Amino acid sequence: MSTVETAISYAADNKQRYLGELIAFLKIPSISGLSDHKQDINDAARWVSSQLRDIGVASVEVIATEGHPIVYGSLINPGEQLPTILVYGHYDVQPIDPLDEWQSAPFNPHIRGDNIYARGATDMKAQIVALLKAVEAVIRTSQLPVNLKFLFEGEEEIGSPSLGAFISENKELLDCDFCLNLDAGILAPDVPSIMYALRGLAYFEIHLQGPSADLHSGKFGGAIENPALVLCELIAGMRDKQGRVTLPGFYDQVQPLTKEQLREISELPQTNEWWLEQSGANALRQDDQYNPTARATARPALDVNGIVSGFTGEGSKTVLPAQAMAKISMRLVPNQTPEGVRKNLDDYLAINLPPTVKLELIEMHGCVPSVMNRESPAVQAARYSLETVFGKPPLFTRDGGSVPVVGLIQELLGADTLLLGFGLPDDNPHAPNEKQHLPTFFRGVETYIIFLNELAGFMR
Amino acid sequence: MSTVETAISYAADNKQRYLGELIAFLKIPSISGLSDHKQDINDAARWVSSQLRDIGVASVEVIATEGHPIVYGSLINPGEQLPTILVYGHYDVQPIDPLDEWQSAPFNPHIRGDNIYARGATDMKAQIVALLKAVEAVIRTSQLPVNLKFLFEGEEEIGSPSLGAFISENKELLDCDFCLNLDAGILAPDVPSIMYALRGLAYFEIHLQGPSADLHSGKFGGAIENPALVLCELIAGMRDKQGRVTLPGFYDQVQPLTKEQLREISELPQTNEWWLEQSGANALRQDDQYNPTARATARPALDVNGIVSGFTGEGSKTVLPAQAMAKISMRLVPNQTPEGVRKNLDDYLAINLPPTVKLELIEMHGCVPSVMNRESPAVQAARYSLETVFGKPPLFTRDGGSVPVVGLIQELLGADTLLLGFGLPDDNPHAPNEKQHLPTFFRGVETYIIFLNELAGFMR
Repeated sequence: MSTVETAISYAADNKQRYLGELIAFLKIPSISGLSDHKQDINDAARWVSSQLRDIGVASVEVIATEGHPIVYGSLINPGEQLPTILVYGHYDVQPIDPLDEWQSAPFNPHIRGDNIYARGATDMKAQIVALLKAVEAVIRTSQLPVNLKFLFEGEEEIGSPSLGAFISENKELLDCDFCLNLDAGILAPDVPSIMYALRGLAYFEIHLQGPSADLHSGKFGGAIENPALVLCELIAGMRDKQGRVTLPGFYDQVQPLTKEQLREISELPQTNEWWLEQSGANALRQDDQYNPTARATARPALDVNGIVSGFTGEGSKTVLPAQAMAKISMRLVPNQTPEGVRKNLDDYLAINLPPTVKLELIEMHGCVPSVMNRESPAVQAARYSLETVFGKPPLFTRDGGSVPVVGLIQELLGADTLLLGFGLPDDNPHAPNEKQHLPTFFRGVETYIIFLNELAGFMR
Repeated sequence: MSTVETAISYAADNKQRYLGELIAFLKIPSISGLSDHKQDINDAARWVSSQLRDIGVASVEVIATEGHPIVYGSLINPGEQLPTILVYGHYDVQPIDPLDEWQSAPFNPHIRGDNIYARGATDMKAQIVALLKAVEAVIRTSQLPVNLKFLFEGEEEIGSPSLGAFISENKELLDCDFCLNLDAGILAPDVPSIMYALRGLAYFEIHLQGPSADLHSGKFGGAIENPALVLCELIAGMRDKQGRVTLPGFYDQVQPLTKEQLREISELPQTNEWWLEQSGANALRQDDQYNPTARATARPALDVNGIVSGFTGEGSKTVLPAQAMAKISMRLVPNQTPEGVRKNLDDYLAINLPPTVKLELIEMHGCVPSVMNRESPAVQAARYSLETVFGKPPLFTRDGGSVPVVGLIQELLGADTLLLGFGLPDDNPHAPNEKQHLPTFFRGVETYIIFLNELAGFMR
């Protein structure tokens, strides 16, 4: 057997244990956005660090930050000139509500059919475990032909507030040829793919204050402005009937997609029917010349992520609410920036906010969009590894989501990122019944084994 | 001392006990809209029935309905031809949220300055206690010169679902010269007033379903419609920039106010400054020729009473919500009906609902608007009683709220209603820190004493 075959065989022999370790990781409710999960976050950081030690990474540290800790480890062969990969992942997860929509408890991992259901399964504990188990298989069966640095944070789901400072202060420690970011996926179990572009993000909270306290809508309705109504009007005014965002200047930096880009997108297997099936939506908007895949990945978008005002319980309370709040986010495409759309939003509100309400606008988090070089050795090695495991060459895709660390690492370390992970589009990240497809997880282990073994050859 | 003076003196001697009884009533958390308060509702019904017995009403029943019980009692002098008053009140209260805005616990009545703070204080336990204590004072000191029937329900705050059937089935039992509805107030501690008109109500829940489950707004935003955004657009489209309701046909039955009506409204003490002070709002809308008092009492209005969708907790969850819900209510003026505006809303939604979402429209409750005869003996007696106690004649006002029982009693018993109660506009009904002004409560007791004594004279 070749070196690669031996490592893959080792991984196959250890499948049950690998799955058990994934389950142990998924049981830790490491929700970064809720302060009462601080201890769980620390437990998850410790779990990752002890995994690193178990697979043979001697140098591991759990490093305190102003927020949640960063786990850093390195496996460097000082004697040889090997390529150095900075492996990035996050051990934190999203909140779990609405809890009543989960079919099994979010932190009691449950296998149904080919999938394991748990918060954080696809996003992204399974991806971390797949890579670590691949490293283990290579180390235990031969010599690792690359240097590895591991950077695992616990604040990705809250916008990575501590990561920038950590990278800035540790540029030498983190120096690398490129970053392998595991927070990614493929199009379908039989459709390997590589994401080469990500949208950026700008996330805001809009708080409106009307009357100083909730009022009786009978006694005051008509005389006193209703902040929930004003909020609806402000939000409704943010897009036109064709679905275009109306914030002044929003599209100024947006380039139309080229014919070649449109052709590549149109050849992806994501048909209109696929989008309807994946979302369960009744129908698609039909606004412009772009298909849903282009609109979700290569065009900007504005969404209401949450809205609340007044009485929302059982019954018919006749209240004129004092406050109204909405969480609004925008997905950005190349050349747009969080600062730019913040200005667009400020300009919009300056024009449209009525004097009857008071506004507080909170900038929650943001990140720039990014596009990777598809001709780099890392991408070529990933392409080869995926084709070997899946039996067909990967498609190149853009993703509608945002991975802020990609921009940070480009800016602070000057390093490109390769996104290589094994989530699937129907894995429900950030939603109830999040899952990971287990056959794809194990193919991920194999793909990483080949990638680790073959990378050096592509870099020569 | 005259008969009236003797009764008033009795009431003055018993002020502390009266207050204690009010406090005992306010301690019962009789929230009709929440099913886990069923026992509290029953306790409140029993409290009212034992109060009736204590003050000398021999015939009292607690009558089960399909919902919460009705307390009925009567004090009839069969020997004489006395006027018969049907006294109406409700012993149930609104829910208490948002709880964190209360300065003292809503069911632990707390006196600060001249006010007693508790859920249900002004709406309307203090009004019930004031009338019962006036009856007690009259009975204990002389002969009651009217027949009284008492009708206290426990479902007013949820739209009185059982009351119509009860009245229909007990028309003879409830036969009366007029109804004295205690669920009312005056303009200020030194400004007595009589409400002669009420707005109607039509209350709806709009539920929209977009995708079948919450989605990641990065992966789906732009391709899949956001039901929260659609809900905002639908609501925003319900009024124009001048604040007029845009539901098709909404104003077809609405009569413009006459010059005389406008003059009377303009002479009320509710200035623009008063509205700003009462509401704590930043500014008033300035849409049309109507002042805020006209807009809140004599013109129709549309309000969002509650709205919720997506993630509304701490942090920045990037979710594209599956559902969005809003509670929308309309206040109606003479000639509008709940059925009519339901049709207006249906027509609006038929035109404006996009195919990307599924709609469920729930009609919560409704009631017709009403206008009373200002020349009736009951109104004249009330005018005299208020002028005697407050030292000035009452103003005639319209109220923006809705008292569905007024319409029911007109329709089923053919009886007019006199609204006479002692809430104040800043008593925060339906809101946190609901209160009752205690000096006004005691003046209410006096006013009722005079009214009970003098009514027969006005009816001759």
